[in-house]
Amino acid sequence: MAVLTNPRSDRVKSVRALGRRSVRERTQRFLVEGPQGVREAVRHAAGRVVDVYVTPEAAQRYPEIIETAQEASRYVHEVSDEVLAAMSETDTPQGIVAVVAIAEPTLAEILARRPKLLVVLTNVRDPGNAGTVIRGADAAGADAVIVSTNSVDVLSPKVVRSTAGSTFHIPVVTGLDIPEIIAELRGAGIRLLAADGSATRTIDEADLSSAHAWVMGNEAWGLEPEVRDACDEVLKVPIHGLAESLNLAMAATICLYASARVQRG
Amino acid sequence: MAVLTNPRSDRVKSVRALGRRSVRERTQRFLVEGPQGVREAVRHAAGRVVDVYVTPEAAQRYPEIIETAQEASRYVHEVSDEVLAAMSETDTPQGIVAVVAIAEPTLAEILARRPKLLVVLTNVRDPGNAGTVIRGADAAGADAVIVSTNSVDVLSPKVVRSTAGSTFHIPVVTGLDIPEIIAELRGAGIRLLAADGSATRTIDEADLSSAHAWVMGNEAWGLEPEVRDACDEVLKVPIHGLAESLNLAMAATICLYASARVQRG
Repeated sequence: MAVLTNPRSDRVKSVRALGRRSVRERTQRFLVEGPQGVREAVRHAAGRVVDVYVTPEAAQRYPEIIETAQEASRYVHEVSDEVLAAMSETDTPQGIVAVVAIAEPTLAEILARRPKLLVVLTNVRDPGNAGTVIRGADAAGADAVIVSTNSVDVLSPKVVRSTAGSTFHIPVVTGLDIPEIIAELRGAGIRLLAADGSATRTIDEADLSSAHAWVMGNEAWGLEPEVRDACDEVLKVPIHGLAESLNLAMAATICLYASARVQRG
Repeated sequence: MAVLTNPRSDRVKSVRALGRRSVRERTQRFLVEGPQGVREAVRHAAGRVVDVYVTPEAAQRYPEIIETAQEASRYVHEVSDEVLAAMSETDTPQGIVAVVAIAEPTLAEILARRPKLLVVLTNVRDPGNAGTVIRGADAAGADAVIVSTNSVDVLSPKVVRSTAGSTFHIPVVTGLDIPEIIAELRGAGIRLLAADGSATRTIDEADLSSAHAWVMGNEAWGLEPEVRDACDEVLKVPIHGLAESLNLAMAATICLYASARVQRG
């Protein structure tokens, strides 16, 4: 296999350009960096993997990723360290990246599967938080994550990295604003639980057995009043010590695990 | 008040030097960056605040922090933006930092208070993880965090930032290695619960009503076998989806909240 060595080639530039939202939207592709993300991509979304780029060293270190990609007839290209560094925005892509086709489900598709546990993010701006919520939702066995249009792009390299592969495990719906999301979920009979530090009732006092969605707001200022008011209940994670709050990803994961414990018995 | 304007002064250098562990150990002082950390320092550890450095703009924005510091007879110094930037290792210290005296309790002091809920970190290397565990332990109302000598220094600026002020809310014990910690906790009748993804039983199946400590290992490779074997039980946070794991801070916080729910009924 010929090794790609020119970090200024058009191919390298087009991979690097996937760091920009406009390019992702136009090409309907996104970038996955590092062995964990690429492994989960070839395992769970092999048909969508367009290209895998790997240094000779990383190819030796992760033979099962390369094998799985090749079995699925995906294009695996060996590249120099310099080319890989030029493709990626991280300092440590650990020798492997993949370009993957975007395939987001619609909310209607998710609702047709009669979900029991969802999480809605609105106004979430921090990539690490959004990615960690997706990872936590995956671990808690939630049915999908729904991210409103005023939030960070969940296919940005930083969010994808923070999901630790969960991007390929759990459906993530985007493209709707929060009033549309609320209307659709309500129409499907899904209870809306606003997670908000200002609540008087705690998550342990709520009925979490029927289908519901946790609605989480901005990292710093929480949910907008009109969103909170549109929900069926407002609940908080109890704070027993002197901490002002938990971070968003932590609060979301605790809410989702409280639901899983009740729903899965 | 005279404004300090020389970013190359000895005072500035001595503040900046607190980014180094050796200097913190020699001077028994550490650096707190940003309004949230400094606010909690002057609220909960006023007697230990040595100096507060603030830009004129930040002094206007956070008058209650300055007032609380001055009421406690702490030294508040106005500094130029350039001086503040030279004191801090972050790009965005938000105009305010404080130098605070170290006052870590001993494990014997903590045990004398008959704690019911503790968390032990061993081999934890990532500052963000360690800080977020301290924040989560504070929120869950744990009695203390115990960090073994082979872990990250919990008074490094990065850890302190990640605690979001919880450094000043919950006792953090350091300076003991993991065999000493295990022996002391066992001697005090505290059950040791190893949190480990390899466990067969989940945290929901354990008895969390009596006094116990969650023992958490390294971010990547978990607990060392001899530490796991030395614990009374090995338990895992259940993973319901396809995620390989939760990150350390998330797992610790879920464990601690499971305990709080049982202990606080």
